[in-house]
Amino acid sequence: MSGTWGSNIKFTIFGESHGKAVGITIDGLKPGIEVDLDYIKREMDRRAPGKSELSTQRKEADSFEILSGLFKGKTTGTPLCAIIRNSGQLSKDYEKAKSLIRPSHADYTGSVKYMSFNDYRGGGHFSGRLTAPLVFAGAVCRQVLEKRGIIIGSHIMSIGRVEDRGFSLTDIDQHELQSLREKRFPVLSDVAGDAMQKEILDAKSAQDSVGGVIETAAINLPAGIGDPFFDSLESTLAHLLFSVPGIKGLEFGAGFDITRLRGSEANDEYYVEDGRVSTYSNNNGGIIGGITNGMPLLFRVAVKPTPSIGSKQRTINIENMKNETIEISGRHDPCIVTRAVPVIEAVTAMALLDNIE
Amino acid sequence: MSGTWGSNIKFTIFGESHGKAVGITIDGLKPGIEVDLDYIKREMDRRAPGKSELSTQRKEADSFEILSGLFKGKTTGTPLCAIIRNSGQLSKDYEKAKSLIRPSHADYTGSVKYMSFNDYRGGGHFSGRLTAPLVFAGAVCRQVLEKRGIIIGSHIMSIGRVEDRGFSLTDIDQHELQSLREKRFPVLSDVAGDAMQKEILDAKSAQDSVGGVIETAAINLPAGIGDPFFDSLESTLAHLLFSVPGIKGLEFGAGFDITRLRGSEANDEYYVEDGRVSTYSNNNGGIIGGITNGMPLLFRVAVKPTPSIGSKQRTINIENMKNETIEISGRHDPCIVTRAVPVIEAVTAMALLDNIE
Amino acid sequence: MSGTWGSNIKFTIFGESHGKAVGITIDGLKPGIEVDLDYIKREMDRRAPGKSELSTQRKEADSFEILSGLFKGKTTGTPLCAIIRNSGQLSKDYEKAKSLIRPSHADYTGSVKYMSFNDYRGGGHFSGRLTAPLVFAGAVCRQVLEKRGIIIGSHIMSIGRVEDRGFSLTDIDQHELQSLREKRFPVLSDVAGDAMQKEILDAKSAQDSVGGVIETAAINLPAGIGDPFFDSLESTLAHLLFSVPGIKGLEFGAGFDITRLRGSEANDEYYVEDGRVSTYSNNNGGIIGGITNGMPLLFRVAVKPTPSIGSKQRTINIENMKNETIEISGRHDPCIVTRAVPVIEAVTAMALLDNIE
Amino acid sequence: MSGTWGSNIKFTIFGESHGKAVGITIDGLKPGIEVDLDYIKREMDRRAPGKSELSTQRKEADSFEILSGLFKGKTTGTPLCAIIRNSGQLSKDYEKAKSLIRPSHADYTGSVKYMSFNDYRGGGHFSGRLTAPLVFAGAVCRQVLEKRGIIIGSHIMSIGRVEDRGFSLTDIDQHELQSLREKRFPVLSDVAGDAMQKEILDAKSAQDSVGGVIETAAINLPAGIGDPFFDSLESTLAHLLFSVPGIKGLEFGAGFDITRLRGSEANDEYYVEDGRVSTYSNNNGGIIGGITNGMPLLFRVAVKPTPSIGSKQRTINIENMKNETIEISGRHDPCIVTRAVPVIEAVTAMALLDNIE
Repeated sequence: MSGTWGSNIKFTIFGESHGKAVGITIDGLKPGIEVDLDYIKREMDRRAPGKSELSTQRKEADSFEILSGLFKGKTTGTPLCAIIRNSGQLSKDYEKAKSLIRPSHADYTGSVKYMSFNDYRGGGHFSGRLTAPLVFAGAVCRQVLEKRGIIIGSHIMSIGRVEDRGFSLTDIDQHELQSLREKRFPVLSDVAGDAMQKEILDAKSAQDSVGGVIETAAINLPAGIGDPFFDSLESTLAHLLFSVPGIKGLEFGAGFDITRLRGSEANDEYYVEDGRVSTYSNNNGGIIGGITNGMPLLFRVAVKPTPSIGSKQRTINIENMKNETIEISGRHDPCIVTRAVPVIEAVTAMALLDNIE
Repeated sequence: MSGTWGSNIKFTIFGESHGKAVGITIDGLKPGIEVDLDYIKREMDRRAPGKSELSTQRKEADSFEILSGLFKGKTTGTPLCAIIRNSGQLSKDYEKAKSLIRPSHADYTGSVKYMSFNDYRGGGHFSGRLTAPLVFAGAVCRQVLEKRGIIIGSHIMSIGRVEDRGFSLTDIDQHELQSLREKRFPVLSDVAGDAMQKEILDAKSAQDSVGGVIETAAINLPAGIGDPFFDSLESTLAHLLFSVPGIKGLEFGAGFDITRLRGSEANDEYYVEDGRVSTYSNNNGGIIGGITNGMPLLFRVAVKPTPSIGSKQRTINIENMKNETIEISGRHDPCIVTRAVPVIEAVTAMALLDNIE
Repeated sequence: MSGTWGSNIKFTIFGESHGKAVGITIDGLKPGIEVDLDYIKREMDRRAPGKSELSTQRKEADSFEILSGLFKGKTTGTPLCAIIRNSGQLSKDYEKAKSLIRPSHADYTGSVKYMSFNDYRGGGHFSGRLTAPLVFAGAVCRQVLEKRGIIIGSHIMSIGRVEDRGFSLTDIDQHELQSLREKRFPVLSDVAGDAMQKEILDAKSAQDSVGGVIETAAINLPAGIGDPFFDSLESTLAHLLFSVPGIKGLEFGAGFDITRLRGSEANDEYYVEDGRVSTYSNNNGGIIGGITNGMPLLFRVAVKPTPSIGSKQRTINIENMKNETIEISGRHDPCIVTRAVPVIEAVTAMALLDNIE
Repeated sequence: MSGTWGSNIKFTIFGESHGKAVGITIDGLKPGIEVDLDYIKREMDRRAPGKSELSTQRKEADSFEILSGLFKGKTTGTPLCAIIRNSGQLSKDYEKAKSLIRPSHADYTGSVKYMSFNDYRGGGHFSGRLTAPLVFAGAVCRQVLEKRGIIIGSHIMSIGRVEDRGFSLTDIDQHELQSLREKRFPVLSDVAGDAMQKEILDAKSAQDSVGGVIETAAINLPAGIGDPFFDSLESTLAHLLFSVPGIKGLEFGAGFDITRLRGSEANDEYYVEDGRVSTYSNNNGGIIGGITNGMPLLFRVAVKPTPSIGSKQRTINIENMKNETIEISGRHDPCIVTRAVPVIEAVTAMALLDNIE
C-alpha cells in the first residue's frame, strides 16, 4: 500500500493516466488558511506539457477542481480534495501495445505486482501525470510555508554533461530563489542554460532522451525541524523525493563529495552573530542529526533520461513471453528535468509542512 | 515523533548513549521463525568498536537480552523486544562540556528541538550507539530473508579518494556477497583495501577523520516488491538509510551517473531466457517504478567523515551564546565507514522484510 | 486529523454536505476483484433518504462516480476513489442560521475545533451525508467478504422502548441474514416492526424524534482474525462504529448483561464436532482476546434520537454569545436508525476486510 | 499487528506473562515534563494483586525500571521505555496443561492466530499482566493532564446485580473524583460498596467469579478535542478501552438509555453563563460529533467475569482435538473489576493525551 503519506498532514493520491481523473486529498491543514487559486494555477502551469519545443507537444488539461475542504476561499480544516480530469485520450492504441514492455517504464514491474490487472494505458497509476496532483498539493503547502517566510527554489544543475554553477552553500538570496520560479528554463548561468537546451534538442533530434540533476534549496527554515530515528528530515524528504518517477539519486549539502573531505574540512563550524547561530560552511545541507540547524536546506536529485525514446529497443512480450523489439511512437518529452523542477519543489513543500505543522 | 517505523513490521527504537539501555521492539514478525542467536551476535560484533586500530579503542558491551517475543527459540508472533545495557560510562566529563557544541554532531539541533532537556551525554539518543539495536533488528530480519534465498552484502566503495571497483550491475555472485561479510575490511580489491586502510590511519595520526562510500546489493529478490506513490522501494529504503547517522547521499543503480547517459544507453532492455525475465543492463539498480524487477538491488550511500576530531574547532557555547573553540578529546573512530557497513545492511534487511511480509 | 483509517486497507474520506462532492478513496484492495456496481447501488439505496414516510422527504442524488482504481470492471490494486456529487442545495438559508447552534449537532464543537472556519451548511463535514461514501466503501468490501463466504446482516433491535427479539447467539441462519437486507424495515419479528414504525410516526407527528438499537452479526468468519493489544477486533470495529454520527454505545455478545452473570454462566465452553471447534454459548460475541473464535460475530450499537427536531429548544448564539432559542424547520428524519443500518454494516465490512487482507 | 498505538504519542507494548519482562515505550512526550515516580508507583499499586481477599493472593513484583527518555527527572522528548521484570514463576505446570483450552481465555484464539507458537504460559502476551505497562504509561500521561487541570476518576458502578449510584451527568466534583482514587474499593455509595464486596466473596467461595461495570469521568477537558471521521474521541477511547482484556461493552453519556428517549429529552440544550458555554443535560457524555464540548467526559465499560474459575468446565484439547473437561486450579481473582479500574483510567489518560498533544 502506498497511496497515503504523512504524519501531521496526510496526503492521499489516486488516479490513472487514462482513467477519469487524477487527484489528491490533503488532510490536516489548519483551518482558516487563505488559498490563492491563481498561485496553484501558476505552479501547475510550470509542470504542464506542451509549452515549448523542449517538452512533449501533447496538450493536457490540467485544470483542477476542489471538491471539499475549502469554504469562502479558506481551508476548513477538514480534508481538502482536488481532482484533475483526464481528457479523452484515445486508449485503443494501448490495446495492441499492452503486452510489449517499454524498457525502464513500470510496465513490467506493475504487471507483476498487480497480476496484469493494472490499468496499462499510458502507464496508468505510474504515469508522470500523477505528478499533477503532487504539484497541486505542493502549491497549497508552499503558500502556508511562504506565509512563514520559508522559500523553496530550484535550478537545473545539469543536463547530460552540461553543468550550471551550484547554489552558494551558506548564503542563498531569496530574490534569486524566487526569480528562478519565473524562468522558463531555470538556471543560475544562462550561458549554461543555453548549452543545456541545445543538449535536449540534440537528443530530441536523435530520437533519444537525456537526464539531469536538479538542485533545490529552502531558506528561512527555523532550527529544530525534523527528528532523530526514524524520521530524520532527510528521511522524510527522501521518502517523498524517491516517490517521484525517475529519481535515482539524492544528496544533501556536499553529498557524495563530503566523503572525499577530511573531518576538519567537512565539519560545519558554528558561530554566533547578533544572537543568530550560523555555520561557516554548510556541507551538511542544513540538516544535522536529522534536524535543521537554521542554515539553508540544500539537496540535489538525479533525474534519469526519459524512458520513452523513438529508437528501436529490445524487450519482451509478456503475453507470449518471447523476446521482441519495440519502437515507441508518439510525442514524448526528450527530457523531463524541466517539468520535474516544480514537482521536486512540490514534494519538498509537502515534506516540510508535514514536519512543521 | 520518530521512534517507530514500518508498515507490516513495526520497529520501535529507544535509548540514549549513557542511559540504562538502548533497545528495539520488532512487531509483526511471523510466528514460528527460528532465530539463531549466534547469527545476531556475529552481526553485532561486526558493528562493535574496539576491534582494531582502525576504530575507536573504546570497549562497549554489546550483549543483548531478548525480553519478549521469543519462546523455545522461535518467534511467537507477538512483539519481540531486545535491550542492550549501557556499561557505566563516566558521565561527569559531560557536565562541564555540555554547553560546548561539537560541530557536525547533533548537539545544537538536538538542544534546539528538545529545548535543552535532551540527554546530552555522548550524543544521547542521537548517538551512534543507537545503531546497535538496528543491527540487532536487521540480524533478525536477515535470517528470515535468507530462508527465502535473499542475500544482502556490501563492500566499502571508497575511503576518501581511494576507490574499490564496483559490483557488477547485472551479475553478483552470492558467495562473493557472503564472503564479504567475513572480511574484517570488506572490499572487492584487497589492494584498494590496503590503500583505504592507510588513508584511515593517516587521518587518525593527523587527529583528523575521513569518510567514504558503501555499496550494497541484495540478490534473489523477486520481482513485484514495492509500490508506486508513496511507498516506492527506493522511498522506504531511503527513509531508513537516511535515518542512520552520518549518511548524506544515496543513489540507486547508476545513480547520479545515469543523468549523463542518453535514454538509449540508460534504459535497461529486457530479455527472457528459460522463462526468466532479465535486463541486459541494470542502471535502475533493480527498481523500476518503485518496484523490484528481479535484477539485483544495488545502491550506494555516502558516509560523512566522523565529526569527532582532535584538532581545535570553532564553535559556540549555547549557555552564554558566545563564540569559543573546542578540542574533542577521547578515543574516537577516525572513520565510521567500516562500522557503518553492518548498519546499512541491517536497515536494508528491515526495509526489505517490511515490504515482503 | 482523522480522514484516513485502516492498516492493510486505507480509507480516506472527504467532503461536506453542501460542498461540491463527498467521496472516499480505498487503497489496498487486491487487484482483480470483480466489482458489481449494481450491488453498490442497492446498498446506497438502502441508505438514501426519501423512500418512505419514515424518513426525510428530501431527495438526495446518491449516484456515485468511480474516478480511479477500476479497469474493465475489476480493481487494479491502485487506489479506488469514488465521489458522490452534492446537488445544488439552497445554501442561503444557512447564512442567517449559522450562528444559532443546533443542540446535539456538531455545530458548537466543530466551530470551536475549526475556529469557525468549518463549512457550517448542513453540518458540513459532520453531516450524515458523509455516510454515503462509507456505504460505498462498505459495499465494495462486502463483495470481497461474500466471495469468501462471510455474510453481514442486521436488524433493528429496538426503537424507543419497543424491542425486537435478538439474534440467536450461536446459530444465525445465513438466509435470514441475507433476507433482512431486502426488507424495507429490517426486523426479525414483524409484529415488533409494526410497533416500531408506529413509534417513529408518533414521534414525527409530535415534531420529535426517536432513537434505537441495531444488532449486527457476521457469520462464517474464520478463527484467528484480530490482534491482542492494541488492535483487538473489538477495538477496530469500535473505532469505526463510533465514527458513525449518532452512535453512543456498543456491546459485543452478551455485552453489559455479561456483567450480571457469574463466570460459570458467562464462559463460552468449547466442544469439537466433526473437526470443527464451537462453543455452547456465545456470550463473547465471537471474539476472545481480541481475536475471532469462529463463532458468529455479534454486537449492538445504540443510535441516539435525531438531533434535528421541530420543537423549540434553548441554545446559544455563538456570534454574540447570548442565550436564545431555536426552532429547526425543514424535513428531517424522525428516526435515523433505519438509514443507519446499512452504514453500520458498511463500516463492519470495512473493519473486517482491513483485518483479513 | 497491534503493539503500537497512537497518533501524536505512540505507545508500543511488549511482553509475555512468563517471559523476562513486560514493558512499554512512549514516544512523543514533550521534553521537560517532570515525572513523579512515586505517583507512578501509587497507580501501579492500585492495579497490583495480592492486596486483599477480594483479589488473587499471588504476589507480583510490579517494580518498573525506566530505561530511556528520562534525564534528571524530566522527559527528554525521545522515547521513554519502561520495563517490569517478571518474577520467576514456575512454568513447568504449564507444559502439561498447555493443550487444554481455558474457556473465555485467549488460549484457543491465540493458538489459532499464532499457529501454536505463542507463549502459552499464563496467557502469554494476552495476560492481564500486560495491563501493568498500560498503568505505567497512563500514570505518566495523567501527570501531564493534571498539570493542565484535567482530572480522571472512576467508581465501580456495579458488581453482578448490585449497583452504585451514577456520577452526576453535568456536575462532577473534582475532590470526589480524586478521593475515589484513594479508596481501596472505589464507589460513591459505601453501602452499595459493601454489598458489592459481599457479592465478590460469595462468588469466590462458590469457586466462581463475577463481573461488573466501571463508570469513568474526566473533567476540565477543553471543548474542541477529537475529530470527525475517523478519529472521533469516542473512536480513540473505544479503541484503547476495548484493547483491555475482558471489556465487552462501552457507552458514553446516557449510552444505551439514550435510545429510549425522545430527541426533545435527549438533546443537550446549550446555555452561556459568565462567558462559559454549558449544557443543561449531558446525555452525550461530553462528546458531540466526535469532539468534546467542555462538559464532563463520561462513559461506562462492561467487565466480564474472570474467566478462570475453579469449577469443572467442558473444553477441548487442541493437540488431540478431543472433548475434555478442565478444572483451573491456582489463586485467581474472583473479580477483576477492582483491579481494572486503574487500567481503564490509564488508557483513558493515554487516549486523551494523544488527542491533546
